[in-house]
Amino acid sequence: MGNNDQQAYDRGTSLFSPDGRIYQVEYAREAVSRGAPSVGVRTTDGVVFVAMSRPSSSLMEAESIEKLHKLDDHVGTASAGHVADARQLIDLARRQSQGNRLRYGEPVGVETLTKFVTDHIQENTQRGGTRPYGAALLIGGIDDGEPRLFAADPSGTPNEWKATVIGGGRQEIQGHLEDEWTDDLSLSDGIELAVAALAAHDDEFEPSDLAVAAVTEADGYRTVPVEEVEDAFEAAGLDAADEEAA
Amino acid sequence: MGNNDQQAYDRGTSLFSPDGRIYQVEYAREAVSRGAPSVGVRTTDGVVFVAMSRPSSSLMEAESIEKLHKLDDHVGTASAGHVADARQLIDLARRQSQGNRLRYGEPVGVETLTKFVTDHIQENTQRGGTRPYGAALLIGGIDDGEPRLFAADPSGTPNEWKATVIGGGRQEIQGHLEDEWTDDLSLSDGIELAVAALAAHDDEFEPSDLAVAAVTEADGYRTVPVEEVEDAFEAAGLDAADEEAA
Amino acid sequence: MGNNDQQAYDRGTSLFSPDGRIYQVEYAREAVSRGAPSVGVRTTDGVVFVAMSRPSSSLMEAESIEKLHKLDDHVGTASAGHVADARQLIDLARRQSQGNRLRYGEPVGVETLTKFVTDHIQENTQRGGTRPYGAALLIGGIDDGEPRLFAADPSGTPNEWKATVIGGGRQEIQGHLEDEWTDDLSLSDGIELAVAALAAHDDEFEPSDLAVAAVTEADGYRTVPVEEVEDAFEAAGLDAADEEAA
Amino acid sequence: MGNNDQQAYDRGTSLFSPDGRIYQVEYAREAVSRGAPSVGVRTTDGVVFVAMSRPSSSLMEAESIEKLHKLDDHVGTASAGHVADARQLIDLARRQSQGNRLRYGEPVGVETLTKFVTDHIQENTQRGGTRPYGAALLIGGIDDGEPRLFAADPSGTPNEWKATVIGGGRQEIQGHLEDEWTDDLSLSDGIELAVAALAAHDDEFEPSDLAVAAVTEADGYRTVPVEEVEDAFEAAGLDAADEEAA
Amino acid sequence: MGNNDQQAYDRGTSLFSPDGRIYQVEYAREAVSRGAPSVGVRTTDGVVFVAMSRPSSSLMEAESIEKLHKLDDHVGTASAGHVADARQLIDLARRQSQGNRLRYGEPVGVETLTKFVTDHIQENTQRGGTRPYGAALLIGGIDDGEPRLFAADPSGTPNEWKATVIGGGRQEIQGHLEDEWTDDLSLSDGIELAVAALAAHDDEFEPSDLAVAAVTEADGYRTVPVEEVEDAFEAAGLDAADEEAA
Amino acid sequence: MGNNDQQAYDRGTSLFSPDGRIYQVEYAREAVSRGAPSVGVRTTDGVVFVAMSRPSSSLMEAESIEKLHKLDDHVGTASAGHVADARQLIDLARRQSQGNRLRYGEPVGVETLTKFVTDHIQENTQRGGTRPYGAALLIGGIDDGEPRLFAADPSGTPNEWKATVIGGGRQEIQGHLEDEWTDDLSLSDGIELAVAALAAHDDEFEPSDLAVAAVTEADGYRTVPVEEVEDAFEAAGLDAADEEAA
Amino acid sequence: MGNNDQQAYDRGTSLFSPDGRIYQVEYAREAVSRGAPSVGVRTTDGVVFVAMSRPSSSLMEAESIEKLHKLDDHVGTASAGHVADARQLIDLARRQSQGNRLRYGEPVGVETLTKFVTDHIQENTQRGGTRPYGAALLIGGIDDGEPRLFAADPSGTPNEWKATVIGGGRQEIQGHLEDEWTDDLSLSDGIELAVAALAAHDDEFEPSDLAVAAVTEADGYRTVPVEEVEDAFEAAGLDAADEEAA
Repeated sequence: MGNNDQQAYDRGTSLFSPDGRIYQVEYAREAVSRGAPSVGVRTTDGVVFVAMSRPSSSLMEAESIEKLHKLDDHVGTASAGHVADARQLIDLARRQSQGNRLRYGEPVGVETLTKFVTDHIQENTQRGGTRPYGAALLIGGIDDGEPRLFAADPSGTPNEWKATVIGGGRQEIQGHLEDEWTDDLSLSDGIELAVAALAAHDDEFEPSDLAVAAVTEADGYRTVPVEEVEDAFEAAGLDAADEEAA
Repeated sequence: MGNNDQQAYDRGTSLFSPDGRIYQVEYAREAVSRGAPSVGVRTTDGVVFVAMSRPSSSLMEAESIEKLHKLDDHVGTASAGHVADARQLIDLARRQSQGNRLRYGEPVGVETLTKFVTDHIQENTQRGGTRPYGAALLIGGIDDGEPRLFAADPSGTPNEWKATVIGGGRQEIQGHLEDEWTDDLSLSDGIELAVAALAAHDDEFEPSDLAVAAVTEADGYRTVPVEEVEDAFEAAGLDAADEEAA
Repeated sequence: MGNNDQQAYDRGTSLFSPDGRIYQVEYAREAVSRGAPSVGVRTTDGVVFVAMSRPSSSLMEAESIEKLHKLDDHVGTASAGHVADARQLIDLARRQSQGNRLRYGEPVGVETLTKFVTDHIQENTQRGGTRPYGAALLIGGIDDGEPRLFAADPSGTPNEWKATVIGGGRQEIQGHLEDEWTDDLSLSDGIELAVAALAAHDDEFEPSDLAVAAVTEADGYRTVPVEEVEDAFEAAGLDAADEEAA
Repeated sequence: MGNNDQQAYDRGTSLFSPDGRIYQVEYAREAVSRGAPSVGVRTTDGVVFVAMSRPSSSLMEAESIEKLHKLDDHVGTASAGHVADARQLIDLARRQSQGNRLRYGEPVGVETLTKFVTDHIQENTQRGGTRPYGAALLIGGIDDGEPRLFAADPSGTPNEWKATVIGGGRQEIQGHLEDEWTDDLSLSDGIELAVAALAAHDDEFEPSDLAVAAVTEADGYRTVPVEEVEDAFEAAGLDAADEEAA
Repeated sequence: MGNNDQQAYDRGTSLFSPDGRIYQVEYAREAVSRGAPSVGVRTTDGVVFVAMSRPSSSLMEAESIEKLHKLDDHVGTASAGHVADARQLIDLARRQSQGNRLRYGEPVGVETLTKFVTDHIQENTQRGGTRPYGAALLIGGIDDGEPRLFAADPSGTPNEWKATVIGGGRQEIQGHLEDEWTDDLSLSDGIELAVAALAAHDDEFEPSDLAVAAVTEADGYRTVPVEEVEDAFEAAGLDAADEEAA
Repeated sequence: MGNNDQQAYDRGTSLFSPDGRIYQVEYAREAVSRGAPSVGVRTTDGVVFVAMSRPSSSLMEAESIEKLHKLDDHVGTASAGHVADARQLIDLARRQSQGNRLRYGEPVGVETLTKFVTDHIQENTQRGGTRPYGAALLIGGIDDGEPRLFAADPSGTPNEWKATVIGGGRQEIQGHLEDEWTDDLSLSDGIELAVAALAAHDDEFEPSDLAVAAVTEADGYRTVPVEEVEDAFEAAGLDAADEEAA
Repeated sequence: MGNNDQQAYDRGTSLFSPDGRIYQVEYAREAVSRGAPSVGVRTTDGVVFVAMSRPSSSLMEAESIEKLHKLDDHVGTASAGHVADARQLIDLARRQSQGNRLRYGEPVGVETLTKFVTDHIQENTQRGGTRPYGAALLIGGIDDGEPRLFAADPSGTPNEWKATVIGGGRQEIQGHLEDEWTDDLSLSDGIELAVAALAAHDDEFEPSDLAVAAVTEADGYRTVPVEEVEDAFEAAGLDAADEEAA
C-alpha cells in the first residue's frame, strides 16, 4: 500500500484501514519507540525496573524526569513515550490502588491493576473525541508473595513477561534479555541484566543516567541508590568512563 | 469498483457504500482474519475450544495472551483479532452473566448471552463516535444439558455452529472441520479434530503453543492441561518435533 | 449524473442530492437486495412467510440464520438484508408488542406495529450520528380476524400487500406473485405460491433451505415443519433432486 | 455558477451559498417535485383533496400509499414527496390537534395548525444534525365555517391558496387551476376541477388511481368513494378507457 | 482574492476570512437582497411600513405572504428575505413583547425589543451547529409618544433610521428616501414617499401588490386599507394602469 | 509561507499553524482594523473616548451606531470592529458590573472588569464550536480616584495604556498619540489630542461624525456634547469646512 | 517527510503523525519560542524570575504586560508565549492554591501545584474540541524551606530545574545558564546571572525592560524594584546606554 493510500486511513481514532489496522494506535506505538527505553526484569526476589533517564541539560534535575513511580506499597511502574500521557495513566493507577484499599481493605492485585489500566487505554482507541495514549507502561510487583511483571502498550493489550523492555532500541534490548534471562536471578543479577541489556542498544551512558527501582516482598517498592547501580554497572563489565571519552 | 471509489465510502462507521456494504465492518473482519485462529467444536460431551496462542517472545508468559476465557461456570469463550477489543466484549459478557444470576437466580442461556453481546457489537456499527470491534468471539457452553456453540462476528451477527473457526486460515481450517466433524465425537475426539484442523492451515506448532478449554455438564468450564493436548497431538498424527526441524 | 458527481452527495445520512434523492437510503436498499429473498403471502386463512435460509457451511445450524421471527401470538416477521440490523428492529417490535399488551391489555394491531417500526426507521434516515438500517421487514398477522401483510423498507415507508418479496431477485419473484396470486388461496396454496415464486428467480434449492412460518386466527404464529414444505415443493412441481444434479 | 462551484455549498443544511440560497432546501423541493402530485381546491362547500395514488404493483393495497390523511374532524392533509418524511409531519400535526382539544377544549384553527407544522419544518433547515423534510403538505379544513387551504413546502413557508398542487407536474396543473378556478365552485365542481387539472399534466390514469377526500362543515373530513370520483372523471370529459388503449 | 480562495473561508458560520469577513453572514445578506423590498418611514404621526407583496400565482391569497406583522399594540415589523426564517424572529419578538407585559406590566420599548432580537441573531452567527438567519426586519412603533424605526440585519447589528429599506433594489430605493425624506411628513405623506421610493426601483406594480401598515399613538398598529394605498399611489404620480400596458 | 500553506491552518479556532499563530484570531484582528477607529486618552481629570461614528446614510440616526457605552457610573467603553460582536461583550461587562455591586456593594474595578472580559474572549479562541469575537474594546474609568484605561483585543490580551486607538488607521493615530501625549493633559486637552490623532489618519470628518464621552471622578460617565467637540476641533486646528470643500 | 505529508497530520489535536509526534503540541511550543524569554534561577536564598517585558509602544504601561505573577505567598510564576492563554493557567493555579489553603489549612507544595497545572495542560492535548495552550510557565517558590523551580511546557510535561528559560532565544540563554550557574549563588547573584543570560541572546535592552521578582523564605513573593535590577545590570557588565546608541 503506497503512501497516499495509507494517509487515507490513519487520521481517525475510530477507523480501521482495509488491512484491519488502527493506524493511530500504531503511531502511538511509534511515539513510545522514540522514547528512552525502560527495562523490567522478574527475579526470584522481586521485580526490577531500570529506566534510561538522561537529562537534556545539566541544569535539569534528573529525578524530575520521573520514569519510575511507586503505585502502591507493593507495586511500581516504569514508563516510556510521552511523559505527560504516562502521568495520566499513573494517576489513574494510583487512584485505583487507593480505592481498592478503601473498598476491600487489601492491596490491589498486580494483574487486576494492569487490566484496569489497559481497559482504559483501549477505550481511548475506540471512542471518538480523543487520541490514544502515546505511552507504554511496565507494571510490576508482588502478588501473594509472587513477583509479577506486566506490560501495557498503546492498544490496551496486557501481557505478562519474565523480562521485557518498552521504548527505543527494543529489538537489541529484548534480544539480550531473551539470551540471558534465567529463572534463578537474584535481585542484583536482575539489575545487572537490565543494565547490560540497555547497553546492548547504546552503551554511552553512566550510572547516574539510569533510574532504578525494585519491588520485593520484604521491602516493597524502593528506589535503588546510585551506588548499587554502579555495582551493577561494573558487574556488567561496563565502563562508566566510556562516555567521557566519546 | 476501483481503489479510489472504494476509499470514498470506507471511512465512516455509519455509511453504506453504493453496493450496500459497510466497509468499516469488513475491515474489522480483516483485523480478525489477520489474528491467530481459534477453533470451537461441539461434541456429545460438551464444547471444546482450541486457540493458537504462540508468544512473540520466549520471555512472554503464554497464558497471558488470554485467548480463552471462562464467562460463567457453564460457559466459555475463545477470541480472535484485537486482544484489547476482545477483552471489552468479554468483560461485557461476564457482567451480563453475573447480572443474570443476581436478577433471576439462574445461569444465563448460552444463546441469550451471545445475542446480548452481538446486539452490543451491532450498535457500534451503526452509531457515530466509535469504531466497530476488531474482534470475533466463539461462545459455547451447556444449556439445559445440551452443548451449544455460537460465533459472534464484527457485524454483530450471531450464528450457531457444530464446529467453526474464527481468525486466520479460516478457509482451510473450516474445510477440515466440514470434512471430519461427526455428531458422535467425544470430548477428546473434539480436541483432536480441532488440533488437526489448525494443522491443516499451518502445522508448525507444538502442544505448548495451544490454549485448550472445555465446557461439560459434569465439570463446567475447565482449562485442558498440556498433557491432554499432547495426547490429542499424537492422536492427530502430528509430530511436535516438526517445528524444530523447520 | 456521472460517478464523481454522485459521490459528492452520498456520504451523509442527512443530505439530499440535487435530484432529491437520499443516497444512503438507496445504498441501504442495495444492502437489502443483495440478501437472500423472503416472501410473504396473504391467504384466506392467514399470512405465510417463506424465507431462503441456506447456511454458508454445512456445520452452521440453519435455524440460527433466523430469517423468521414471532413478534407476538398473532403476528410474525420475515427479514432480508443485514442480519444484525434486522435483529434490532425485531427487538424493537417485540418490546412494542409486549408494551401494548401491558398498557392496553390487548394485542397490538399489525398496521400500528408496522408504522411504529417504520417511524423509527425514518428517524435513522434524517438525524445525524447514525446510518439507516440495512434491512427490510415483512410484518404480517391477524387483525380482528383479518389477515394483514405489510412491508417496511430502509426509507421507513410502510405499505400493505397481498403478496410481496424483500431481498434479492425481487423482479422475477414479484412478477411471479403478480401473475399467480388470487384472493382465494388456502394457506397451503400460499406456501406453494411462495416456493414457486422463489424458484422463478433461482431454483437451485431444497426444502431444507427454506424457513417457513404461518400466522392464522386458529393457531397464531407457528413454524411450518419441513414435511409441509416438501409437500409444497412437490405441488409446485419442483424437484428437490435438481440441486444435487447441478 | 458552474457545477463545481455549486457543489461547494450544497452539502450542509446550515450553509448559505454566495447567492443566498440554501441548496439542501432546494434539493428537498426537488424530492417533492419528483413525487406524484396532490391537488387541493377550495370550494364554497369546503376543501377538496385529490391525490395521484397509483400502486407500483397490482399486489400493493392502494389505500396503503396514504397520500390523504384526516388530521382532526374538521381538517385534513394531502402530501407529496418522501412518504416516510411526510408521515412524521402528519404525526406531528395530529398530536398538535389532539393537544389543542385537550388544552383548550376546542378544535385547532387550520392556519394555526399549518404554522405550527411549518415552524417545525424551518427548524430542520437551520439547526445542524438533521436534513430538511423531503415532503410538502396541503392542509385544509373548516375554520369558523369558512373553508381554508394552506400549503407547506420544505423551506417551512406557509401560504394560503384558493387552489394549488404539490408534487410533480406543477407547472401544467397549477396553470390549469389558474385558468379554471372560480369562487362559486361546488364540492363536486372542485373534484372535477382537480381531476381535470391532474389530467392536464398526465391523462394516463383511471378513477381507482386517485385518492379523494373532502372536508365540509356538514360532514367534516370524509373519504370520497370511487363512484363519486368516476362521476367527476366523466364530467371532466376524461375517458377511463384511455389507459387500457395506451 | 480569487474565487477559489473565497470558497476556502465561506463554509463555516464560526470562521473569519483573512480579510476579517464572516462570509456566511454576507451570503445571508445576499438572501435578503434577493427578496422583495420592504420600506419603513418615520413620520410626525407614527411609523409607516410598505412591503412589496406580489403573489407568484393568482390563486395564492396575497395576505398569506405576510410581510408585515403586529408585534404588540404599539409596535410592528416588516420583513425581507427567507419567509420561514423571518417567521422565527417574529415569533421570538412577540413572545418577548408578551413576556415584558407579564413581567413588568408595561409595553416593551421599541429599541429594547429590537436589541433583544439582534442579540439573538448575532448568536446564530457565532455559535456552531446553526446558520445565520436569511432575513432582515424593520421594527417600528411608538415609545413614550415618539415614533421610532429600527432595522435588524443578518449580522445582528441594530440601527435606528428616519427611513430605510430592506430587501431588493436597496440602492435606488434608499437613494429616493434620502432625497425626499423630511422631518415634517404626515402619515399619508410617509406612505406616498414609501410607494414612490419603491417605484424608483421597479414601477411595475399595482396598489394591491403592496402590504401597508402604520403604527400611531392614537390607533396603535393597524393595517392600511387598499383604498388609502390607492390614494398614495395617485399622489405619488404613479399610474396603476402601467402594469397592464406593460 | 505561501498562500496555500496558510489556508491549511486558518480554518479552525482551535488550531495552531506551524509558526505558532492562531490565524482565526489574527483574522478577527483584521476585522477590527477594518472598522472605524476609536481613541482613548488618559488625562489628569479622567479618561476620554473619541470614536469615529459616521453614518453610511443621511437617514441613519448617528447615535444608533453606538460606539461608546456606559458600563457603570464610573466606567465606560469604546468599541471597534463588528458591532454585533461588540454588543455581546458590552452586555457581558454590564452584567458583571451590576453583579459586582449586588454581591459586594461596591463598584467593580476597571482592571478587574477588563480581565473578566478578556478571559471570556480568550475562551472563545480555544474551545471549539465558536469563533473569536471580531471586536476590540477600550475600557476606561476611575479606580480609587485614579483614571485607568485598558484595551482588550480579539486574542483576549489585556493591556493598560496612557492613550491608544483600536480600529482602522492604527499606525498613524498611535504615532500621533505617542508624539503628543503628556502626563499633564486636562480633559479638554485629551479630547483635542484624540481629535487631532484621528485627523492624522483621515481628516475628512466633521464634529458631528464623532462620538465623544468622558469618565471623571466628579461626573462619572457622561456623553460630551457636540459643542465641546467643536471647540476641540478648532483647538486642534481642524477646519470643519474642509469636508464640504472636498 | 515533505511539506505535504506533514500537513496531513498536524491539524487535529487528537492525532498522532506516523512518526509519533503530536504536531499541534509542537506548534504550541513554537508559539512559546516566538515570545519574549523569561528566566528562572534557583539560588541558595530562593528563586529568581527575570522576564523580558518591553512594551510595543511608549504609551503602554509596562507593568500591564504581566509576565510575572504571584500565585500564593510562597510561590510565583513567569510566563512566555500567548499572554491570554497564560492568564488562564495562572488563574487555574491561583484557584488551586487558595483551595489548598481552604481545604488543608496549609500552603500548596510547589511541585504539587506544578503537576496540577501540567495535568490540565495535558488534557487539552488529548481531548477534542480544544487546542493546546500556547504558553509555558516557570513555577517556583519555597517548599519546607527549600527553593524549588519547575517548568511546564505545552505538552504538559513537568520538569525541575536549577535554572532555565522559556520563550525565545532558548539556545543561547540556556547555554549561558549552564556555563555559569553554581549551587552557591546568592539571590542578587541569581538576578545578575539571569540578566547576563538574557543578554547572551539579545543585549539591546535596559533595566526598565525587565520584570523581576523573587521568592524567599523570609519575604515570600516580592517584585524586585528597578534599582536592584540596575545594580544587577551593572554587575553583569551591561551598559544600559547601549540601546540608546543603537
